[in-house]
Amino acid sequence: MSLTHFDGKGDAHMVDVSDKAVTSRIATAVTWIKMSQGAFDIISEGRAKKGDVLGVARLAGIMGAKKTPELIPLCHPLPITKVAVELTLDPELPGVQIEATVKTTGQTGVEMEALTAASIAALTVYDMTKAVDKSMEIGGLRVVLKDGGKSGRYQAT
Amino acid sequence: MSLTHFDGKGDAHMVDVSDKAVTSRIATAVTWIKMSQGAFDIISEGRAKKGDVLGVARLAGIMGAKKTPELIPLCHPLPITKVAVELTLDPELPGVQIEATVKTTGQTGVEMEALTAASIAALTVYDMTKAVDKSMEIGGLRVVLKDGGKSGRYQAT
Amino acid sequence: MSLTHFDGKGDAHMVDVSDKAVTSRIATAVTWIKMSQGAFDIISEGRAKKGDVLGVARLAGIMGAKKTPELIPLCHPLPITKVAVELTLDPELPGVQIEATVKTTGQTGVEMEALTAASIAALTVYDMTKAVDKSMEIGGLRVVLKDGGKSGRYQAT
Amino acid sequence: MSLTHFDGKGDAHMVDVSDKAVTSRIATAVTWIKMSQGAFDIISEGRAKKGDVLGVARLAGIMGAKKTPELIPLCHPLPITKVAVELTLDPELPGVQIEATVKTTGQTGVEMEALTAASIAALTVYDMTKAVDKSMEIGGLRVVLKDGGKSGRYQAT
Amino acid sequence: MSLTHFDGKGDAHMVDVSDKAVTSRIATAVTWIKMSQGAFDIISEGRAKKGDVLGVARLAGIMGAKKTPELIPLCHPLPITKVAVELTLDPELPGVQIEATVKTTGQTGVEMEALTAASIAALTVYDMTKAVDKSMEIGGLRVVLKDGGKSGRYQAT
Amino acid sequence: MSLTHFDGKGDAHMVDVSDKAVTSRIATAVTWIKMSQGAFDIISEGRAKKGDVLGVARLAGIMGAKKTPELIPLCHPLPITKVAVELTLDPELPGVQIEATVKTTGQTGVEMEALTAASIAALTVYDMTKAVDKSMEIGGLRVVLKDGGKSGRYQAT
Repeated sequence: MSLTHFDGKGDAHMVDVSDKAVTSRIATAVTWIKMSQGAFDIISEGRAKKGDVLGVARLAGIMGAKKTPELIPLCHPLPITKVAVELTLDPELPGVQIEATVKTTGQTGVEMEALTAASIAALTVYDMTKAVDKSMEIGGLRVVLKDGGKSGRYQAT
Repeated sequence: MSLTHFDGKGDAHMVDVSDKAVTSRIATAVTWIKMSQGAFDIISEGRAKKGDVLGVARLAGIMGAKKTPELIPLCHPLPITKVAVELTLDPELPGVQIEATVKTTGQTGVEMEALTAASIAALTVYDMTKAVDKSMEIGGLRVVLKDGGKSGRYQAT
Repeated sequence: MSLTHFDGKGDAHMVDVSDKAVTSRIATAVTWIKMSQGAFDIISEGRAKKGDVLGVARLAGIMGAKKTPELIPLCHPLPITKVAVELTLDPELPGVQIEATVKTTGQTGVEMEALTAASIAALTVYDMTKAVDKSMEIGGLRVVLKDGGKSGRYQAT
Repeated sequence: MSLTHFDGKGDAHMVDVSDKAVTSRIATAVTWIKMSQGAFDIISEGRAKKGDVLGVARLAGIMGAKKTPELIPLCHPLPITKVAVELTLDPELPGVQIEATVKTTGQTGVEMEALTAASIAALTVYDMTKAVDKSMEIGGLRVVLKDGGKSGRYQAT
Repeated sequence: MSLTHFDGKGDAHMVDVSDKAVTSRIATAVTWIKMSQGAFDIISEGRAKKGDVLGVARLAGIMGAKKTPELIPLCHPLPITKVAVELTLDPELPGVQIEATVKTTGQTGVEMEALTAASIAALTVYDMTKAVDKSMEIGGLRVVLKDGGKSGRYQAT
Repeated sequence: MSLTHFDGKGDAHMVDVSDKAVTSRIATAVTWIKMSQGAFDIISEGRAKKGDVLGVARLAGIMGAKKTPELIPLCHPLPITKVAVELTLDPELPGVQIEATVKTTGQTGVEMEALTAASIAALTVYDMTKAVDKSMEIGGLRVVLKDGGKSGRYQAT
């Protein structure tokens, strides 16, 4: 088994997908950001009256998905047909659970777009909350669903 | 205590830093990507002969740092003066440990730049390794050092 | 009737167009910029010998059309197949009349691309003329034609 | 009087500002978008429960300000220190009044950044509302305040 | 014979390709960068132990190809399906020979993408080597192969 | 002597310039594009009536200079204070001579910005002329002047 992003000599290249079928593809990625109880309380209330942290982060995630091929060097540009980023306050964490879903009709998968959307959304929550908590941690970033294309359906267990 | 990214009415804005001093600032962020033993073995060898995953990810992280104000909606554009991204193979994980350090001489901190550099580097490792392992997880993303500016030195414990 | 850019919970998302037909689409937008007689005289002559304000603005509009999905958060990236931006000196205004036409073969319309091209062209005229007139005004920005796609032909009256 | 964006031969160039003083600068631009009563009613209620059109447009305006030097060909890149975009529902119009304020500490003014922020915010309102009204019009885009720099304070009457 | 990038009045526009067939297209461009013997020796050894100049330049070229429609004003955005950039040390020059190949399935050719990839790779070699040699020269940039599309196969002699 | 873009382990990084003085810097780069007599005749006349190839290329070069830190991986972002790109028809070549000059007040030099501006201008001439000549060649790209900063004045002989 080998890494497709390198050619026979070990040099990086953008893989040739010219002959892959144009199919309907979907991917979902998740992540979370954990914060202090104090920070969590502020963004929870904030949602209602002091400023919508989750709304800003959602938009940043959506726009981030569109920037994926500029950020990930060997990623193909793709005509994204849908992006949704869901942010949910999780009092257990305490923090925010993030789930990003991306769809396309194209020649390669969109898991990098979903992962990027989730990451940028999490980073934006960090940015907007860092004035009250510098020790927040982002984790659990992974692909939970990928479908369409030759390799078939992948669902995280 | 309140979120500085919102004004009195709760509307998001880019905070006015016009009157903050131009000082020397530094921030370091860390993250890791955990993978299967099989994937780890391939990228470890790969370093030597089949393709330099870590080299590509390092560059992606450095370039990602420069894109931070395009990605994080309320982040100020900053004249970055240094970016270094270190990727270390960690057989215990198994996976890759990533540390990104950014410096500037400016009016706001660079922790978002460091976090973004670390994230993009980790996502790039994912992209290049996903052909052999779809279940990789990225975590432990946090700021470990921030210095310069009014709020003083922050060092994670 | 409701806003398609929000889901059932009122959260913004990029609408799923995966199942929309790929059709030939066109949109035309217009705008104008009004200026002092003095500024108008300078850019009119200018065309001939002192510098081609309209030529620079035309190019800015064309390039702006390509940036639309980076600027408008919930806009889909689209493979634009044509952009034309026409700028006409209008002594009655006095100022410049601008008309931008964009075409694509895709799953969503291109009126945002046409509006963006017209706006950026107008802003560029402002930028190049502001040394002689700060009180210029841009107005009349609207879609005058949109065709292709399920909603049929729209023509402003 | 002549257009500074052209040299002696009439060729466009980015003006040399190397010897201009680094001063505190501010600019405010305004615009509006006029829509049908039906569209206005939907976005007014929407604010409360069906989706925050103004919140999305505000963010788009702020991010748009940062893209100004990429959009306006002869515009200098500037370290923006503040951006605020205010959107107010105006039942008289009916529609939305938009005001964008940008600050910097730099060698050139920020009126183009303020105008761009206002424009992109208005275009985003259009994008999110176009499903219910295609005949909206954007107008009244102009600079109402500019201060700092050699040319002194300008305030629209 | 005339320049297709201008309309009947001599105004620049992005050519309408809506009615061109979607076909498989390929283009290859080459260039070289010539340097002093001292600089050549350093990057040659460097490859092995002091830093991989060619690896960094290869990646820059690949990412540059994706930026082509942002850089070349009248270029159509295209869904690139492959990019490979080969850099070879040439002791005769002395310097580096660069060859970039781009593929797409689209309505226009990809020679601008191949030329841009080759240019950016060469500029990156310059950037990384300029500390030891400021007099390097880049030349020989041209298209050596273009195929697919109505105008048929072109191969440089 | 060694390459500053790599650290002690041979890993690429963006060099720390935090402690370099902020000085006035300038750089000039040149290049040319050689074409068939037929192509040259068309763009020469074209200047007057069929479309301003040189005007479009000049603008592309100026905008390209601003994109340099996005294109060259280890390049620092810089507040450019001036860009001028001169294109001259050269019947001897036949083709176009291009000279780009960039200034900044910053901590690193601007030769990469000047080289990028010249390259993008040349590529744009290629793009606009390729319908009549595919065999054009771009060459002679080099730095002819660099001043400001610790390493002093460099002037090509």
